Amino acid sequence: MSSQVDHFLPCFGWLRRYNGELLRSDAMAAVIVTIMLIPQSLAYALLAGLPPQVGLYASILPLVGYALFGSSNVLAVGPVAVVSLMTAAAVGQFAAVGTPEYLGAALVLALLSGLMLISLGLLRLGFLASLLSHPVISGFITASGILIAASQLKHIFGIEASGHTLLELAQSLVAHIGEANLPTLLIGGLATLFLFWVRAQLKPLLKRFGCSDRLADSFAKGGPVAAVIATILVVEFLSLDVAGVRVVGEIPKGLPPISIPGFDPELWRLLVPSAFLISIVGFVESVSVAQTLAAKRRERIQPNRELVGLGAANIVSAFSGGYPVTGGFARSVVNFDAGARTPLAGVLTAVGIGLTALLLTPLFHQLPKATLAATILVAVLSLVDLGAIKRTWVYSKKDFSAMLATILTVWFVGVEAGIIAGVSLSVVLFLARSARPHFARLGQVPGTHHFRNVKRHDVIASPSVLSLRIDESLYFANARWLEDKIYDMAVADPQVRHVVLNCAAVNEIDASALESLEALIERLEAAGVALHLAEVKGPVTDKLRRSESFCAHAGRLYLSHYDALSELDPATTRAADIGQRPNRSKAAMPLTLEQAQTLA
Amino acid sequence: MSSQVDHFLPCFGWLRRYNGELLRSDAMAAVIVTIMLIPQSLAYALLAGLPPQVGLYASILPLVGYALFGSSNVLAVGPVAVVSLMTAAAVGQFAAVGTPEYLGAALVLALLSGLMLISLGLLRLGFLASLLSHPVISGFITASGILIAASQLKHIFGIEASGHTLLELAQSLVAHIGEANLPTLLIGGLATLFLFWVRAQLKPLLKRFGCSDRLADSFAKGGPVAAVIATILVVEFLSLDVAGVRVVGEIPKGLPPISIPGFDPELWRLLVPSAFLISIVGFVESVSVAQTLAAKRRERIQPNRELVGLGAANIVSAFSGGYPVTGGFARSVVNFDAGARTPLAGVLTAVGIGLTALLLTPLFHQLPKATLAATILVAVLSLVDLGAIKRTWVYSKKDFSAMLATILTVWFVGVEAGIIAGVSLSVVLFLARSARPHFARLGQVPGTHHFRNVKRHDVIASPSVLSLRIDESLYFANARWLEDKIYDMAVADPQVRHVVLNCAAVNEIDASALESLEALIERLEAAGVALHLAEVKGPVTDKLRRSESFCAHAGRLYLSHYDALSELDPATTRAADIGQRPNRSKAAMPLTLEQAQTLA
Repeated sequence: MSSQVDHFLPCFGWLRRYNGELLRSDAMAAVIVTIMLIPQSLAYALLAGLPPQVGLYASILPLVGYALFGSSNVLAVGPVAVVSLMTAAAVGQFAAVGTPEYLGAALVLALLSGLMLISLGLLRLGFLASLLSHPVISGFITASGILIAASQLKHIFGIEASGHTLLELAQSLVAHIGEANLPTLLIGGLATLFLFWVRAQLKPLLKRFGCSDRLADSFAKGGPVAAVIATILVVEFLSLDVAGVRVVGEIPKGLPPISIPGFDPELWRLLVPSAFLISIVGFVESVSVAQTLAAKRRERIQPNRELVGLGAANIVSAFSGGYPVTGGFARSVVNFDAGARTPLAGVLTAVGIGLTALLLTPLFHQLPKATLAATILVAVLSLVDLGAIKRTWVYSKKDFSAMLATILTVWFVGVEAGIIAGVSLSVVLFLARSARPHFARLGQVPGTHHFRNVKRHDVIASPSVLSLRIDESLYFANARWLEDKIYDMAVADPQVRHVVLNCAAVNEIDASALESLEALIERLEAAGVALHLAEVKGPVTDKLRRSESFCAHAGRLYLSHYDALSELDPATTRAADIGQRPNRSKAAMPLTLEQAQTLA
Repeated sequence: MSSQVDHFLPCFGWLRRYNGELLRSDAMAAVIVTIMLIPQSLAYALLAGLPPQVGLYASILPLVGYALFGSSNVLAVGPVAVVSLMTAAAVGQFAAVGTPEYLGAALVLALLSGLMLISLGLLRLGFLASLLSHPVISGFITASGILIAASQLKHIFGIEASGHTLLELAQSLVAHIGEANLPTLLIGGLATLFLFWVRAQLKPLLKRFGCSDRLADSFAKGGPVAAVIATILVVEFLSLDVAGVRVVGEIPKGLPPISIPGFDPELWRLLVPSAFLISIVGFVESVSVAQTLAAKRRERIQPNRELVGLGAANIVSAFSGGYPVTGGFARSVVNFDAGARTPLAGVLTAVGIGLTALLLTPLFHQLPKATLAATILVAVLSLVDLGAIKRTWVYSKKDFSAMLATILTVWFVGVEAGIIAGVSLSVVLFLARSARPHFARLGQVPGTHHFRNVKRHDVIASPSVLSLRIDESLYFANARWLEDKIYDMAVADPQVRHVVLNCAAVNEIDASALESLEALIERLEAAGVALHLAEVKGPVTDKLRRSESFCAHAGRLYLSHYDALSELDPATTRAADIGQRPNRSKAAMPLTLEQAQTLA
């Protein structure tokens, strides 16, 4: 009973053994993550084209939703850069930034994404996420990072610019660069430099001054908050908002509102593909960081429960004025390093952000958008992993081509198109390989009942029986090609009267391959050659038996390859059994050579 | 030199050995195909939403284009039902039927389709067509046949109805059925009954009266022409056009015009996906009929040259006032049966249709559209193959689900969506299988150096070395799953110190699998277990060597599984070599049993 409850609500598991020591660890982590999350949640809402408070709302109740259902102890959920970019791209197609429709569409997107994640979890379809190969996801994140950085330049320069692709952004930036606002540029530029300096230099510096590793780390994570405070003060005292520095402005004070996503069937239908892609990308991102961090403590996460946890977070987000959320990479690492031990750390972070929304929002009125842009800029550039691109290039040109297709499509067509291009190309490249499977002509190893590749072993091949082994399941992508190959090999030598197909490596024969086999049998029959199968696996045999037309025309099914040969060419087999080589006729030799070329 | 020319222009091959006897055969076939093609080309243009003469134009020069570059001796190219339906669906999104834009878009579609077919042929990408599995293409054609039949009912009833899905068509028909025109219904109904009777009964009847088989066949193929003549006469003499029977009307007299497809980049971009689907469907259809017919005469066709041939036909069509064409199934069978011996039969058919366009078009003025609809109705119902649906259901539920998804999507969403749904589902189902590959724990066969599955053979497994064999390439879809499975098995038994992965069946390790292997090595290392690989194939080893981080962390690469075991657990190996079973410790046994469950 208790394990049943634990299965659906994993939180009961850790709540039962909760104690004061765990609370101290979790609370400490929550404070550090809250400090990190405040500027991030405002900034990512800006990136998603949403009002800043939406970022705060998405960082409160969704964290509680995840804590109830998720399986990771340290995953820090909330708004993240890539999902914010994808939200902007998806919602931007159907509504203009700043309108109530835009906000409503973001809620619908979170709800759909939540429902999909939960369905995938309950149906155990987490497998679908594995179609997103490492090179594609890594290329996608690198490309998105650069695209996001480019999209933030307008805030740093204080100009109006727009565009969803790198090209559009560049054109728009160049067109408006003359309108740059100097105070904004100073604030944005200095904030960016400061944040890069904090990231690269502050921690070693503090340690040199005798700070402990952990304390130095916490200070370094506070960089964005320091930039936020400093620039608010500068704007306030120099009245730079009057001088054209754009500020965040009025943020409503208070806890998240209850929001009901509107039900417009047409809008839902249109948002389904985007919600699916956001779900899959968010899940893959979350699960890989959660898995890496869990392994460091010898813990485990369950991918299907992660789906449910992230789904719950998104549904809660949809009903509490938020937008799509997922587990953040940097944030979870900080949570882990700061000592989070259970999902309660997430709940405490939610309390921290809740207090911020309740009490601190008036303080952000004079916060320059340029500061938030600088925060995003520095955060996303750490997502860019050029090393991964190089490693992939060195390791596999095929994987590299899928990665490159993803990157270029993200930059020059769109983020969703990028994912689709990468996944499609990697699937097609994989299918292309199994569509031209390795196959070998076999001969008998003298003195044994074994059959091996004639090209690699010193074996005896029957002149009248062509023995072939195919090292792949027979299915739609290779069916017709194999049909032609086998036919050509069989009719190339007029001495051949039988073909024996060794199916030891064939795990499946699908309906397309069955039709091709039937066609092959018919074509070979017309040429006076019979086709037999040997060493067919049990499940495959059972399936073949269901096809009447196959059973009516096929030759025999032999249990072993040796059985087939000893019946179809007893003379050669008898000679090979005692290790004797028959006098090879002239006709038999060229066939083998020719096949060596065919197979090359 | 001559073989070079033959390669690019296969027509030189057969022209060189052309003679009077071949000409007699080809001419006879051309006459019969022309008679069959006249009503079909008018009817399919109607189905595509185009003026009737466009059907004639698409049956003239495109046939010459194919004859120059194609490799089949009997394929009869021209407008076909399924491609006409797809053209209507594609072009209908961007222009209204009857407008010059509609006609212009059809030309662009033919041009794009031609360029794609030629590119696929030159790049030898015919493989892409094999992604269209037999069940998907067969389901697609059956579903399209029924959809086309439903779309023609409005002409038989003489009412206005529209819609691209079965549901829309049914609603529209029901809404307008009250406006049915009785004379039209009589003509359409009688023509349909007559054509069905001709198809089913005429040939046996004629043979009973002493006709030869071939003559009876030719008469039966003339059924549509007889219906056309009879209904033209009826409409003319009873002035039924005044009574509301819709007729084809004025068809411009003359040879095909020279048409230049307009270049509107936006329209081209929008039509690319449709052109791609039309190309692939048309190619698969053509190539399968061409292959079947070639095999009957022990001839061969080259799929990549077929792509070029069909591409040439479509480009010619775009520049001579036509629309997308491909090889027709019924038409090619007639061509074959009537004795066509070379592609010149197609050229002669083109001359026949050309003469029709030049001289006979005024005769079609009074041709009722209901007659053309009856021709289509009878022709497409022969495409419906319910037997294939049943056979697929019996043979494989997985193939059946892809087929059913195709059929339902064609009927209720759209033709293009149907193809995409079918292909996606069959690819995902295929990947799902290889994403959860079979793998086995191995033990040493006593007294030999062989290693076999512990579940199937009486073998000796080392208590400290876990031997695993994976029967699939390691790639993105199975990488993470295998990583978890192997980790769980290795840490389940505290006695295990080494894992040896037998890679004899691994043809590839892609970048995702490499990262998973690296992660696995790290996780196992943390648990005090080392990972080694055995029997890795040459090309795979070469690739692994390119990854520095893999080489730095992995255990050893052993040539044979026996080498690995004799080094890692010499005691058990020595005992097994002489057929001795070691005293199994209690800890070793439960692991094997547990694995039996894990693997079940």
